[in-house]
Amino acid sequence: MVRRDAEKIYVGKQRNNHSLVQESINDLLARLAKSGKRVVRLKGGDPFIFGRGGEEIETLFKENINFQVVPGITAASGCATYAGIPLTHRDHAQSCTFITGHLKNNTINLNWQQLAAPNQTIVIYMGLVGLEIICASMIQYGAPEDLPIALIQQGTTHNQRVLTGTLSTMSKKLKAQSIQAPTLFIIGTVVALHDTLKWFQPDKDIEL
Amino acid sequence: MVRRDAEKIYVGKQRNNHSLVQESINDLLARLAKSGKRVVRLKGGDPFIFGRGGEEIETLFKENINFQVVPGITAASGCATYAGIPLTHRDHAQSCTFITGHLKNNTINLNWQQLAAPNQTIVIYMGLVGLEIICASMIQYGAPEDLPIALIQQGTTHNQRVLTGTLSTMSKKLKAQSIQAPTLFIIGTVVALHDTLKWFQPDKDIEL
Repeated sequence: MVRRDAEKIYVGKQRNNHSLVQESINDLLARLAKSGKRVVRLKGGDPFIFGRGGEEIETLFKENINFQVVPGITAASGCATYAGIPLTHRDHAQSCTFITGHLKNNTINLNWQQLAAPNQTIVIYMGLVGLEIICASMIQYGAPEDLPIALIQQGTTHNQRVLTGTLSTMSKKLKAQSIQAPTLFIIGTVVALHDTLKWFQPDKDIEL
Repeated sequence: MVRRDAEKIYVGKQRNNHSLVQESINDLLARLAKSGKRVVRLKGGDPFIFGRGGEEIETLFKENINFQVVPGITAASGCATYAGIPLTHRDHAQSCTFITGHLKNNTINLNWQQLAAPNQTIVIYMGLVGLEIICASMIQYGAPEDLPIALIQQGTTHNQRVLTGTLSTMSKKLKAQSIQAPTLFIIGTVVALHDTLKWFQPDKDIEL
């Protein structure tokens, strides 16, 4: 919806293929603003939840550039809604934790004890590569092997696919599938509600 | 933006003053839909994050009523954005947890060990009454006494006020204030960023 004559600069990121590193994005925002342009930094989801929005506005602040931030529907909300999986539910989860599954030197530095505790929902952003480690570590720290987990591929779009399993089965299940990014994982007993509450099934062309 | 002739039914909740209990809301949705009406259940925030949306659509499912769910900007995202407090940040928090501060028999049943761990952001929905217990319990389980905490009152509105303190000072600070609901608390070192990143200050009539 931008002006037809607006200059559009793609700075998107895919795993191991970032069109610009974060520092260059920060600098570009500042440089364009200081050249007198009105700049929109458009991103999917919410800029303050795994979106590096904080770092970007720190740069703007240092450069004395006025800005405003518009919140967005973070992937956890969007995907949970369209998969029919409530993130909190009186009978299942009294809290909800968002983490990323980024690997660093083939390990993931997370508080496993915390994640293995019951009565919560865990949402994993960017967790596909690290999933096997995440599931194994959670089981090692006491989470039940049959704790439900859902993979939501291309969530909220007409290509959405939801695959459900358990901490002990999901990694194997994924190996038999061709997975399309972006992906999001939801772990917790709320996932069991998907079977009945899956109101959005684009492949079935449901008319509401 | 509804039709002028739409019937509007208020079912809002304030603490200890619910215009309708949840079960009555569920039943009302089903009854109106089955009478042939097109029903919108409108709520602030996101219906699947402490919004009881899951329970409402479970009722609709049981009654064989078609529905769709529209995700929303949850209070954590809205308030964090307008307070200039990123919920995650590479230098501060690698995860973010949403909890409620509901009291039950004057205690709060939360996993304090989990909440006292470092490198995370904790967002408390409906935490005003339980705040003193929450702060004391976190300190007892090892969180630093000087861990920053922010209270955001009437966040995202032109009446927004942000009050910052630490786990050991916040309860006392609040007693000297007249607090306007709704409120949201953010706990974690990300709160320290508010001082520089507070771009939205309605009382100062900032022009952007």
